[in-house]
Amino acid sequence: MPRALSKLLATQGKASVRDLDAVDLHTHVYLPRYMDILRARKDVPFVRPGIGGERLIILPAEQQQLGESQQQPGGISAGRPIGGEYWDASNKLRYMDRHGIRTSVLSLANPWLDFLPLEEQIRQATLLNDDMETLCRGSNGRFLAFGVVPQDSTTAVEEVERLSSGLPHVRGVILSTAGLNGKGLDDPDMLEFYRAMDRAGLTIFLHPHYGVGNEHYGKCGHALFLALGFTFETTVAVSQLVLSGLLDQVPDTLRLLLAHSGGSLPFLAGRLDSCVEHDAAIAQNLQHAPSVYLKRFYYDAVAYHEPALQCLIDFVGADRIVFGTDHPFFPPIKDNKEVPEGEGGEDLSELDWHSTLANYEIMANMSKDVQSAMLRDNAKRLMGI
Amino acid sequence: MPRALSKLLATQGKASVRDLDAVDLHTHVYLPRYMDILRARKDVPFVRPGIGGERLIILPAEQQQLGESQQQPGGISAGRPIGGEYWDASNKLRYMDRHGIRTSVLSLANPWLDFLPLEEQIRQATLLNDDMETLCRGSNGRFLAFGVVPQDSTTAVEEVERLSSGLPHVRGVILSTAGLNGKGLDDPDMLEFYRAMDRAGLTIFLHPHYGVGNEHYGKCGHALFLALGFTFETTVAVSQLVLSGLLDQVPDTLRLLLAHSGGSLPFLAGRLDSCVEHDAAIAQNLQHAPSVYLKRFYYDAVAYHEPALQCLIDFVGADRIVFGTDHPFFPPIKDNKEVPEGEGGEDLSELDWHSTLANYEIMANMSKDVQSAMLRDNAKRLMGI
Repeated sequence: MPRALSKLLATQGKASVRDLDAVDLHTHVYLPRYMDILRARKDVPFVRPGIGGERLIILPAEQQQLGESQQQPGGISAGRPIGGEYWDASNKLRYMDRHGIRTSVLSLANPWLDFLPLEEQIRQATLLNDDMETLCRGSNGRFLAFGVVPQDSTTAVEEVERLSSGLPHVRGVILSTAGLNGKGLDDPDMLEFYRAMDRAGLTIFLHPHYGVGNEHYGKCGHALFLALGFTFETTVAVSQLVLSGLLDQVPDTLRLLLAHSGGSLPFLAGRLDSCVEHDAAIAQNLQHAPSVYLKRFYYDAVAYHEPALQCLIDFVGADRIVFGTDHPFFPPIKDNKEVPEGEGGEDLSELDWHSTLANYEIMANMSKDVQSAMLRDNAKRLMGI
Repeated sequence: MPRALSKLLATQGKASVRDLDAVDLHTHVYLPRYMDILRARKDVPFVRPGIGGERLIILPAEQQQLGESQQQPGGISAGRPIGGEYWDASNKLRYMDRHGIRTSVLSLANPWLDFLPLEEQIRQATLLNDDMETLCRGSNGRFLAFGVVPQDSTTAVEEVERLSSGLPHVRGVILSTAGLNGKGLDDPDMLEFYRAMDRAGLTIFLHPHYGVGNEHYGKCGHALFLALGFTFETTVAVSQLVLSGLLDQVPDTLRLLLAHSGGSLPFLAGRLDSCVEHDAAIAQNLQHAPSVYLKRFYYDAVAYHEPALQCLIDFVGADRIVFGTDHPFFPPIKDNKEVPEGEGGEDLSELDWHSTLANYEIMANMSKDVQSAMLRDNAKRLMGI
């Protein structure tokens, strides 16, 4: 066991990772109904049989590789292998037990419903949210959920009201940086949605999908798209929201949770303040410096190294940070490859997920109170557990 | 005086900011010869008479505003006001005295020579480096310099050899993320340049200019271009360099200094490691995880808030971080506007530069040794002072 993990367990007074009783606020599922949608499609995003079982083609860059790989014997190798860890609730529970996660607040993974015609988005959002409620209700307290809303500000508000009044296990909504209407988080038509979420006490889980700077990542596989494109996307979208002044028209109790520790906002917040201060036309639209708004938000601890998590703590305080795993992405690695590669059907829930353990290990040097806040207390408060 | 500044002075045992004896490794000058080039041009980048004196139009987005503003009485208002702080060495010295800077390692500001035809780049690089050497030689130890090289790997290596053998006050080269040949830092033709810089013991000062994600910043003035576009650019270019494997072919003594505290690399390094580890095709090209290379570099402390500087220290150690100001950009602010706006001719060197003081203040809570390392000792070692 890595020394950092031993230290975390000692500080927490636990014998094993299995005892950590964490709450995971960044954990995805492709509900069976959603898998059916993906399996029926022929354009990104879609799922089809390939080498080592089914494969998920989610990024436009992956689809470009598809032409060649379709010629390969055994099926396509583009995209990523996908197994029960993506859709099977019992698989998720086994993974949770092994990794000390008491409660998972499930969210549909990107790209959610963004690719469907609006009418279909409206219909599927209702069905998927109902599925999620049913799954959580039967989970004996192990699952809660973020719901989805259609990309339309009017019907999204209606769905928020339906979630709030009738789906008690759905405690928030996962949202893409495109916002509703596809015009970004700073579109004035978002205002009623923010107000409705605030009234309902529900949390917006903001998550990237599209990438920023994508034209630069082609030579580097998916590594830079995921490491930089995703985090830049969150950074840009939230900066646009903050600089728009829209948040001055929304109660400061609005609960906004930023994926991947806020992209790179905790690091760049000082520079952002400085650049805004030197741009009078922007500054005069805002009641506060950008960092004031950023400190109102919540952030997951999906940071993968201690300097970043500590920066986040220094910036917003440990009481706004919640543990997350990004499961089932970043699966275990064996022989330098993600495990399912070409080995379809292996039950990944029986293996150690190093990406999950890494996000425990980076807490090792913090005090017990700070650890406990991030591992479970903050999430319980935010999610009303 | 802000409390953080008092605390820094107390820890350093100094009575006044004027006594801090700092070495500034991120400070720009448009040499008179370079100003002549800019004044003679009609496309970005260029300088022309406008409201409040001369104005610098450096970004394509600024040129777009030019059409309208040319109609205004009194001249153009696009771009930014520009005065002696950009080209006058005595102005820089007054600013340095007031702000406790003993030595400035001057560099030409972006966009350097990138916009000139190659033959002209080669000619001007020699002339500008000679100008810089002359300026530094006559400065009584107050100035050293980063030189410039033409965007051509062969002649750049020749110029590095000339700097190394004959221009003792030029201690490095400022380089754009386009690298030589305009194909990025990861172009294999860069290899001989890296080796030549390493042989000469000269430092590469990597600085952004072009921006990444520019299509997202239009609604927000220059604030997001400078806060995010610049820092993303450094992050992307250095990540591409690291992931290319090129650094495995260069001695690990190569001195690479990253502007603006490394963009967002110190925060994202853990995620970058994780994403590379999960992309076998990329990982197998590298001898080490990306963060191992990133920890070999030097970073300026131009971070504008303490959580970011602390993150950088946690990541690379205080002995790789050097004080910087980014002077003459981010000038003093009065009445919510940068001071020179519409007030041409004011001597900014007689005012407090809050952007400079901010980068002192963020060191206030660190130990005297760590402060001293960042304020002067590391820079002296790196620059051979």
